[in-house]
Amino acid sequence: MRKAPIIREKQVTQWPEYDQLEDGLANYWYPAMRGRKLRGKVPMQILGESVLFVRDGGEVFALADRCLHRGTPMRFARRDFPGTLSCIYHGWCYDLKTGNLVAALTDGPDCPMVGKVSIKTYPVEERFGLIWIYMGEGTPPLLEEDVPEEFLDPRIVLCIRISEQDGNWRFAVENHFDDAHAQYLHRFSLYATFSRVPAYKRGSRVVRDGKWLEREQDSLHFAADYPGLGRWPKLRFWQKSYGIKVRVRMPGIGMVARKAHTAFKFHVPVNTDRFLFVQVITRQATGVRAWLFRLEYWLIHRWLYHVLFNNDDVLMTKYSHSGPENLFGPDISVTGWRKMCIEEVRTGQVAAE
Amino acid sequence: MRKAPIIREKQVTQWPEYDQLEDGLANYWYPAMRGRKLRGKVPMQILGESVLFVRDGGEVFALADRCLHRGTPMRFARRDFPGTLSCIYHGWCYDLKTGNLVAALTDGPDCPMVGKVSIKTYPVEERFGLIWIYMGEGTPPLLEEDVPEEFLDPRIVLCIRISEQDGNWRFAVENHFDDAHAQYLHRFSLYATFSRVPAYKRGSRVVRDGKWLEREQDSLHFAADYPGLGRWPKLRFWQKSYGIKVRVRMPGIGMVARKAHTAFKFHVPVNTDRFLFVQVITRQATGVRAWLFRLEYWLIHRWLYHVLFNNDDVLMTKYSHSGPENLFGPDISVTGWRKMCIEEVRTGQVAAE
Amino acid sequence: MRKAPIIREKQVTQWPEYDQLEDGLANYWYPAMRGRKLRGKVPMQILGESVLFVRDGGEVFALADRCLHRGTPMRFARRDFPGTLSCIYHGWCYDLKTGNLVAALTDGPDCPMVGKVSIKTYPVEERFGLIWIYMGEGTPPLLEEDVPEEFLDPRIVLCIRISEQDGNWRFAVENHFDDAHAQYLHRFSLYATFSRVPAYKRGSRVVRDGKWLEREQDSLHFAADYPGLGRWPKLRFWQKSYGIKVRVRMPGIGMVARKAHTAFKFHVPVNTDRFLFVQVITRQATGVRAWLFRLEYWLIHRWLYHVLFNNDDVLMTKYSHSGPENLFGPDISVTGWRKMCIEEVRTGQVAAE
Repeated sequence: MRKAPIIREKQVTQWPEYDQLEDGLANYWYPAMRGRKLRGKVPMQILGESVLFVRDGGEVFALADRCLHRGTPMRFARRDFPGTLSCIYHGWCYDLKTGNLVAALTDGPDCPMVGKVSIKTYPVEERFGLIWIYMGEGTPPLLEEDVPEEFLDPRIVLCIRISEQDGNWRFAVENHFDDAHAQYLHRFSLYATFSRVPAYKRGSRVVRDGKWLEREQDSLHFAADYPGLGRWPKLRFWQKSYGIKVRVRMPGIGMVARKAHTAFKFHVPVNTDRFLFVQVITRQATGVRAWLFRLEYWLIHRWLYHVLFNNDDVLMTKYSHSGPENLFGPDISVTGWRKMCIEEVRTGQVAAE
Repeated sequence: MRKAPIIREKQVTQWPEYDQLEDGLANYWYPAMRGRKLRGKVPMQILGESVLFVRDGGEVFALADRCLHRGTPMRFARRDFPGTLSCIYHGWCYDLKTGNLVAALTDGPDCPMVGKVSIKTYPVEERFGLIWIYMGEGTPPLLEEDVPEEFLDPRIVLCIRISEQDGNWRFAVENHFDDAHAQYLHRFSLYATFSRVPAYKRGSRVVRDGKWLEREQDSLHFAADYPGLGRWPKLRFWQKSYGIKVRVRMPGIGMVARKAHTAFKFHVPVNTDRFLFVQVITRQATGVRAWLFRLEYWLIHRWLYHVLFNNDDVLMTKYSHSGPENLFGPDISVTGWRKMCIEEVRTGQVAAE
Repeated sequence: MRKAPIIREKQVTQWPEYDQLEDGLANYWYPAMRGRKLRGKVPMQILGESVLFVRDGGEVFALADRCLHRGTPMRFARRDFPGTLSCIYHGWCYDLKTGNLVAALTDGPDCPMVGKVSIKTYPVEERFGLIWIYMGEGTPPLLEEDVPEEFLDPRIVLCIRISEQDGNWRFAVENHFDDAHAQYLHRFSLYATFSRVPAYKRGSRVVRDGKWLEREQDSLHFAADYPGLGRWPKLRFWQKSYGIKVRVRMPGIGMVARKAHTAFKFHVPVNTDRFLFVQVITRQATGVRAWLFRLEYWLIHRWLYHVLFNNDDVLMTKYSHSGPENLFGPDISVTGWRKMCIEEVRTGQVAAE
C-alpha cells in the first residue's frame, strides 16, 4: 500500500521579524568546505548565490559562477594564465584576486572591455582545515570574530563532517538549542544508550556568556508519575547522567561541551530550503593522543553522533515547522535564540565600519 | 526518437458549479483502506488533508498528521501509554479517542498545556473489511447512509482492490456512468471478448431509483452503415449480448450489476489531482460457494476486470478533460450525474443536524 | 561532495522586441522528423502545440493531439476506416485531410454532431527525407521558400541527425552565427584537432546575400601578446587554417560551408525552453561517391561533428543567457541576426496573402 508522502509547506514561525531572516544572515563568515576538497574548481550555492571556489597556485579564490558577457557558468572555465580564469564560451579572462577582466582573448590584445568590468569576487580564507567565505557587504570583519575561540588553540584537533540537508537553516539552529527535544527525540538514539536522559527540568533559563547563549536549569528530573497515564520513563540501571553544556551564538553556531570532547555545528544557508551542515568534534590533544582521538572519532562519533544521532535532528528540521506553532515551557531556549538572532544580527552598516 | 509527453492542463468542464466540487465532497463517509492493512500507523492524504490512521488495542483511530507544538508529522510518533500517541520531537502525548493533549512528557507531570489543546481527530469505523472515515463538519451521518445497502446483507462476499490513480475524482465518476465509452473504449478489452457490445443506443435516459441514478434506453443497435465510411463494427459469432445495469450515487459511488456479480466503485479524492480507486466485486454466497467466488475473483476478475479493464478508464480519467468539451447525445448520462452532484451534495448544515 | 547544480533562470537579452519572439516564429515551414520514422502515429510538441503526425496509406497528415469531445489525446486513437482516425474514448471519427468529424460511432449513423465540428489539422509535406509542417496562420508559403536552395539540387546527399535540446531556440541560432565562440569554445574540440583556429579577427562585419546573412572580416590573427598575461594561443605545427563560410537566415536556419561539405542546422522551437535540433550535412554526389560520403559521415562527421562538437554548443545554449549580457566587438554577428529576426519575421498578414 502506498503511504502518503509528507506534505511540506513553507516553514514559518509566529515571529515575523525572525521569519524575515529566512534567507540567511549575509554579513558573517561561513565555512563552505574542507580545504583538501578544493582542487581546481568547486561550484556551490551559498546564501542563494552561485559561487565558484577556485584553487590556483595553492591560493584559494571565490567568484560569481556567471560570466559577465553572456551569463555562462564560470565552472566550465579554463585556466590559460596563472591567477586567471577564462570563460569557456568566448575566452573572457578574469583576474582571480580582483575579478577584473584582464583580457577577452577572442577580441585580441586591445579589446576595449578590458579594465572596464569586474566579476564579483568574495573574501575567502583557508583556516582550521576549512575554507571560509564572507558574502556580506563592505569590508569583512576578522575571521576570528565569527569562529569559536576554541578553534584558535594550536593544540585543538578537529574532526569534521559536512553534509547538505533539507529545511531552513534557522530551524536547524533552533533544533540544536532546543531543550526538550534532547529529552525525548534523542532518548532513543544508539548514542544515548548509556546516558540517563532527564524526563524534564525545572527552573530552565538561558544565560549569556560572551558571544554565547547557554541553557541552564535548577534541577533535572529523571522520571515522574503522569496523571492518568502512569510512570515515565523506565529507568535502566546501566544508564548514567552526564552533564553537558549546550550553547548557541551568531550566526547560528551550536556548541555541545561534553567532558571528553566539544562539538560545534555550523548551519550555512544554501538557499531558503537547504543548509550546509558543518559538524566539528574537537578536543585539545597533541601527538599520539591526537591520533587516538581521530581514531575514536572514526570508530564511534562519526557514525553514532555525526550520522545517526544528528539524522534525527535533520528529519525534524526538514519535516516540522509547517503550520502554526504552540510554544510551551521548555521553548524558552528556542525563543532565547530567536531574540538574540533578531537583536544582534550584524547589519551592512556595522560590517562596513 | 523521443515522443512528446502528454501535456496535462487543469481538468475542467463547462459547468462552474460542478467544477467547484473538484476538491471532493467533505460530508460523506469514505473507505480509506482494507482493515487488515492497518497495523500500527498508516499516513494517508484524503480530501487534501494529511490523516494518520492508527490501530491501538484492536481499535481504529484517525487524527491529523501534524503535532500542535511544532508541526511534526505524527507518523513518527511513539506509543508510550495505551490509547495515546506521543510526538517524536518533544513527547506531546495525545489521547487517540478525543485528541486531547494528556501530557507533554518533557515538561513534567504538571505541564500547563495539558487539557488546553486538542489535535484534530476524525470519526472512523471498521466495517465490511474496510476502514471508513468521515472528514466532514458536525456529527457524521450513520455509515449505512453512505454505503450501498447490498453491503448490509450478511451473506455478501466482497472482493476488493484499492489503487491510487491520477486525475480528478469527478472525471473518474463520470467515466464510470458514461454511456458511450463502454461501446468504444471497452469494446477492445480482453474482458469483453465474449460480449456483444452495442454500437449505439436509442432513447437513452437516466432514471432515479432511491439513492441511485440508472441508465436506461429504448433499444440497442449492434451495427450500422455509417454514411461515407461503411459498416461498423464487425460482428463476431462467438459474442453474446449481456444485460448490465449501470448506476451511480452520491458521493460518487458506481455500480455495475451483472447476472453473476455486482461491482461497486468508490472514488475517494486524495487531492484535486488524485483519487483512491476502491473497487469491490460482490455476490451473495456462503460456505463453499463463497470460497469458489473468491477463487473466481482471483483467477479472472482481479486481472481482467479490476486491473486491465479499469486501467483503460484510468488512462482516460488522467489524460482527458483538458481544454473545452463538446458534449453529445450519449452524454446525458454524464450530465445526469453532474446535476445530481450539484443538487444533492450534502452540506455542512445538513450533516450537522 | 555535492556540487551545486547550475541554477537556470529565464533566458533573456536586453532586446525586448527580440525577446517577444521567444515562443518561436509561427509562419514558417519547419522540419519535424525523418520521413522513415513516421509509421502509424507520432505525437510531438512544436511551437508549444501538441501535434499528432499520422501516416495513413502512405500519405502524411498532422492534427491536434486532442479530441474535440472530451479532450482525449488522439495519440490513443484507432483506425476504423481508411483516411480517418477514431478517438479511443467514444469513437469520434475524424477525416485526416480536412479534420471534419465524419462519424461519432457510438451515437449511430445519424449523429447530429457530424459535419458540424472539425479538429485542427496542419499543412505537412514529405520532402528531402524529412516531414515538414506549417503551423502558422493562413495559406502557407511554398515549402521551397523556407528551405535552403541547395536542398533542391537532385544530386544532393543529406546526412541527418535530429535531437531535442534544452534552451531557447533563439540562443541556439545566436550560438550558431556567433563569431567569437568558434575561436575559443570550439578550439578545444576533437573535430578541430587539425584546424588552425584564429585567435581574433579585425574588420568583422555581417553582409547580406539573398536570404542569408554572412560573416566577413578583413583579417584573421592566429596569436598575439596579451598585455600583462603573455602570448596566446600556442600554435601547433600540424594545424592548418581552413576557410569556412558561416551564414544564417530566417527562421533560424544555420549554414556552415566547408570545402568538402556544407552543414545546415534547423532550430525548431518545441516550447519556450526546448528546441528540436535538426542537423544536416550535405554534399553534391551521386552513385558510389554518394555512398562514400555517407560512409564518411557515419565514420567521422556523425560523432565528431553532429554529436561531440555540437554538444559544446548545446551546453552553452542551455546554461548561458541567464542574467544581464555585456555584448562586445565580435558580437556584431549576434546583433546582426537579432536585427534580421526582428525586422524580417513573417507575420500572419504576409503569410496569408
